[in-house]
Amino acid sequence: MSPDEFRRHAHAMVDWMADYLADVGTRRVVPDVRPGDVRRRLPGAAPEAGEPFERLFADFRDVIVPGMTHWNHPGWFAYFPANASPPSILAEMLVSTLGAQCMSWQTSPAATELEQVAMQWLRDLLGLDAGFTGVIQDTSSTATLVALLTARERATAHAAGAVGLRDAGAPALTVYASTEAHSSVPKGVKLAGYGLEQLRLIGVDDAYAMRPDLLERALADDAAAGRRPACVVATLGTTSSTAVDPLRPIGDLCRRYGAWLHVDASYAGAAGLLPECRWMFDGMELADSFVMNPHKWLLVNFDCSAYFVRDVDATLRTFQTSPEYLRTAYDPEVANFRDWGVQLGRRFRALKLWFVLRSYGAEGLRTMLRAHIALAAEFRRRVEAEPDFEVVAPSPLGLVCFRHRPAGMDHPAALDEHNRALLAEVNRDGSVHLTHTSLGGHYVLRLAVGQWQTGREDVERAWSLIRRASAY
Amino acid sequence: MSPDEFRRHAHAMVDWMADYLADVGTRRVVPDVRPGDVRRRLPGAAPEAGEPFERLFADFRDVIVPGMTHWNHPGWFAYFPANASPPSILAEMLVSTLGAQCMSWQTSPAATELEQVAMQWLRDLLGLDAGFTGVIQDTSSTATLVALLTARERATAHAAGAVGLRDAGAPALTVYASTEAHSSVPKGVKLAGYGLEQLRLIGVDDAYAMRPDLLERALADDAAAGRRPACVVATLGTTSSTAVDPLRPIGDLCRRYGAWLHVDASYAGAAGLLPECRWMFDGMELADSFVMNPHKWLLVNFDCSAYFVRDVDATLRTFQTSPEYLRTAYDPEVANFRDWGVQLGRRFRALKLWFVLRSYGAEGLRTMLRAHIALAAEFRRRVEAEPDFEVVAPSPLGLVCFRHRPAGMDHPAALDEHNRALLAEVNRDGSVHLTHTSLGGHYVLRLAVGQWQTGREDVERAWSLIRRASAY
Repeated sequence: MSPDEFRRHAHAMVDWMADYLADVGTRRVVPDVRPGDVRRRLPGAAPEAGEPFERLFADFRDVIVPGMTHWNHPGWFAYFPANASPPSILAEMLVSTLGAQCMSWQTSPAATELEQVAMQWLRDLLGLDAGFTGVIQDTSSTATLVALLTARERATAHAAGAVGLRDAGAPALTVYASTEAHSSVPKGVKLAGYGLEQLRLIGVDDAYAMRPDLLERALADDAAAGRRPACVVATLGTTSSTAVDPLRPIGDLCRRYGAWLHVDASYAGAAGLLPECRWMFDGMELADSFVMNPHKWLLVNFDCSAYFVRDVDATLRTFQTSPEYLRTAYDPEVANFRDWGVQLGRRFRALKLWFVLRSYGAEGLRTMLRAHIALAAEFRRRVEAEPDFEVVAPSPLGLVCFRHRPAGMDHPAALDEHNRALLAEVNRDGSVHLTHTSLGGHYVLRLAVGQWQTGREDVERAWSLIRRASAY
Repeated sequence: MSPDEFRRHAHAMVDWMADYLADVGTRRVVPDVRPGDVRRRLPGAAPEAGEPFERLFADFRDVIVPGMTHWNHPGWFAYFPANASPPSILAEMLVSTLGAQCMSWQTSPAATELEQVAMQWLRDLLGLDAGFTGVIQDTSSTATLVALLTARERATAHAAGAVGLRDAGAPALTVYASTEAHSSVPKGVKLAGYGLEQLRLIGVDDAYAMRPDLLERALADDAAAGRRPACVVATLGTTSSTAVDPLRPIGDLCRRYGAWLHVDASYAGAAGLLPECRWMFDGMELADSFVMNPHKWLLVNFDCSAYFVRDVDATLRTFQTSPEYLRTAYDPEVANFRDWGVQLGRRFRALKLWFVLRSYGAEGLRTMLRAHIALAAEFRRRVEAEPDFEVVAPSPLGLVCFRHRPAGMDHPAALDEHNRALLAEVNRDGSVHLTHTSLGGHYVLRLAVGQWQTGREDVERAWSLIRRASAY
C-alpha cells in the first residue's frame, strides 16, 4: 500500500471514526453474540495473495464491530471507564505513523523528554510532591508488579535478583493489602516470587477501607515471627466500591516496619485534580510509589498508566540491563526508560497524555470529573429514595454500589439470585451496561459514571431500566 | 472536542501522515539534538484552559517530530526494524477509536476471537504444529518473562506461586541461555526470582550459536549438584548477529533434563514464512513456548509479540486470577486472555496483525522478506570484496555484522576505537542509521535490512557512506 493509497483509505477511516464517535450511543453496548459466533464467520487460513483494503474494512465493519463491546459508549457504566477521547485518538494516529520505539533516549529523544514533561505536569496537577519521578507503564498490573519487584529487591539488598529468592539469605518476605485490593496485587505477589501465602489480606471497616489496627497487628506478628514486611499496597478507590484506604496511618506503619508503601490509585487517582478530593492523598509523603491510570478517567486512550516513584536508584538497580548493542553515547546523561520497568520495547505513550492535558486543560478535566461525580451522587439519591433499594457502600467518586431488596425477600442467596437476574435484565436492553461485584458477601450492582460522552439522560435511562427490571 | 471537530482535525492529520510516509526518507534518521533540547522548548506546567488543537499539532510538528528518531525511515539499518506499515496504521486508527479493553471474552468478544483466528493463521504460516496455542503479548521481554514464570511454576509444581520461591521446598532452579542471548533473558531471570547467579550463559561456536556440548555439561553439573534445570532459552536469530541456536540437540537435552524449552525467535521468526529458512525450526516439536515479533520484520505496528505455548493449563495456573468483579457468565467456555500473561488490561492488537496478513497476503510478505535478505546478501558481498573490511559473522537473514580493518591497524583497542569513530561518521550524515554490537570481544557494526520502504538505493547509500568514512 503506497502512501497515496494509504491517504485515500485513511480519509475513509476518519469518516467512519467520526461517525462512530457520534453514533456509538445508538449501538448495543455489549453485542448480542455467543462464543464462536464471530470466529465462525472468519476464514481458517491467511490468504496467499493480498486483498484489497476495501474488503478488509468491510469485514471490520460488518463482522468485527457488531461483535465488539463498546467501551466508548455513553451507556457505559461497567467496571471502570476506559476513555478514548478525540484528542487522544488523534495522538494515537500520529504515534502509529511514527512507529517509534521509546526504549532509550537516543531511539526517540523527543518522546523521552515529552514523557518527562507530561509526567511532571501530571504530577503537579495531582499535587504529588517533587520527590516523585514519573514514568509511563502500560497498565496498573505492570506498575504494581514493578513496585512489588523493587520492594523485593530493597528488602533483600538486591540479593533476590542476584542470587535468587531461595538463596538470598533473607527471612520470609511478606506483603500486605486489604481484602478489597485489586486482583493485580495477589497476581503480582505470585509472579514476583513472594508466594500467595506471604500475602496478608487485611480486614476492612464498614466503608471497605483497610483497618490500620489490623494491619499493625499483622505487621507485628510477622516481625515477631522473624519475617520481613517488604511491601504494603494501599488502595485509593478499590475496584469493588472505590473505598479509600487511610494513607497516613498506613504510611506511618510502613515507616515503622521498613516496608515499601505502594499506592494503587488506578481509578481514583484522576480525582486528585480536584481540591475537594485531595483528602484521599493525605499522607502521600510516606508513599514510595504511586500509580494512577490516565486511561481510565482522564480521557487518555488505553494503555497509559502513570507510575510515580521516589527511589529511582532502587528502580534502576532492579530493572537495568546494559548489553553492548543497546549502549549509546548519551546513557550517562539521559533517562533510558527501558530501565524503569519490565519491557524493553516501549510505545510512544506520552503524546496522547500531553494532547489530552493541553486540549482540555486542567479546568476542562476538572469540569468533567465534577460532572461525573455529580451524576453519580444524583443516581445515589435516587436509589436511596426508593425503599426497596439499598446503597451498600459510600460513593466518594463516580461509582455507586447498590442492590434491589424487595420487601419480604431476606434470604441472602435469594437476594443474590434476584440481583443477578435483575442485572441480566437491565443489560439485556443493550443501551446501558453495568457489572457486579461482591461486597460483604453479597452480590451487588455497580454503576460507574465516567465515560466522556455520558450525560444525565444516560444515567436516567439506566435508572429507569433498573426500576423497570425490579418491577418484574 | 466534538465528533465533527475530530473529523476535521483527523482529516488534516491523515494528510500529514500520508506525507510523512512519503517523505520520511528526506528527514535525518536520528535528529541532531542534545539531551534537554526538546524539553527546554516545552512549558513547565499544564495549561489551566484548554488549547485549540491547531496549536497542539503545530508543536507536534515543529518541536516533537524534529526531535524524533525515525524508525520508519528507509535508511533504517539500526537494531532490528520496527515497521509501521500503512495497513497496520489503519488498524491502529480504528482500534484507538473503539478504545476496547480486551481482558476478557465478554469485554471484547470479536477481539478475542479475532486474536485466536489471526494467531492460528500466523502459526500455520510459520509451520508451527497445532500443539501450539497463540496469544498476543506486548513485547518479547514480557513473553520471555511469561515463559520463565511458567517454567518456574512447572518446576516447583506451582509451589513457587503458592508459598514463594524461598519456601517452595524445591532445589535451586537453574536457567540456560547462550552468551549471545538477548538481555531480556537475564532480566527475566532476575525478575522471576531465580536470581542472576542461577543463569548459565552457555558458550557459543564460531557462528555465535549455542554449543549443545557445553549446554549438556552445564545441565549435567547442575543436576549432579542437586539443582533443578527449569528452563532453557534457545535463540533463533540473536540480537548481535542473528546466530541460530541448534534447536534439535538443545530440545533433546531439555527433554532429558525435564527443562522447559523457550524459543526466542523475536526477529528471525518472521523468516519462518520462507520454506528456505524453515531449517531453523528443525526440532520445534521439542519446544514448550515460542515467541516472534510481528512488530519487527512482519510489518505490524509495535507492539505485537506473538507467543505460542503448548501447555495452556500451566500458563493459566501461573497467571489466572478470578475476582468476583471480573467474572462473566461465559468464563467456562471462552478464552479470557487476561489469564495468559502479566497484564489484566489488553489493547486490541489482533486487528493490525489480521489487516497486515490479509493486505499483503502470505506471498506479499514472503516477497518482502526475500528482498531484504537479498539486499543484505548483496551488501555482504560488497563488504567481503574489500580487503580492508571484514564480515565477522554469518548472515543467514537480513543482518550483516562487519568492521573496517585498515592495513597495519592490528591492535584490538585501536580497531575498536577506529570503528566507533567510523560509525559516528556514517551516522553523522543523517540519511542512514546503523548501530553496533560486540562480537568476540570486538566492536563491530551492524547493518540490518528490514524496513518496509528500504530499497537497493538505500543500501547503496549506506555502503558509500561507509566507504567514504573509512577513507578518512
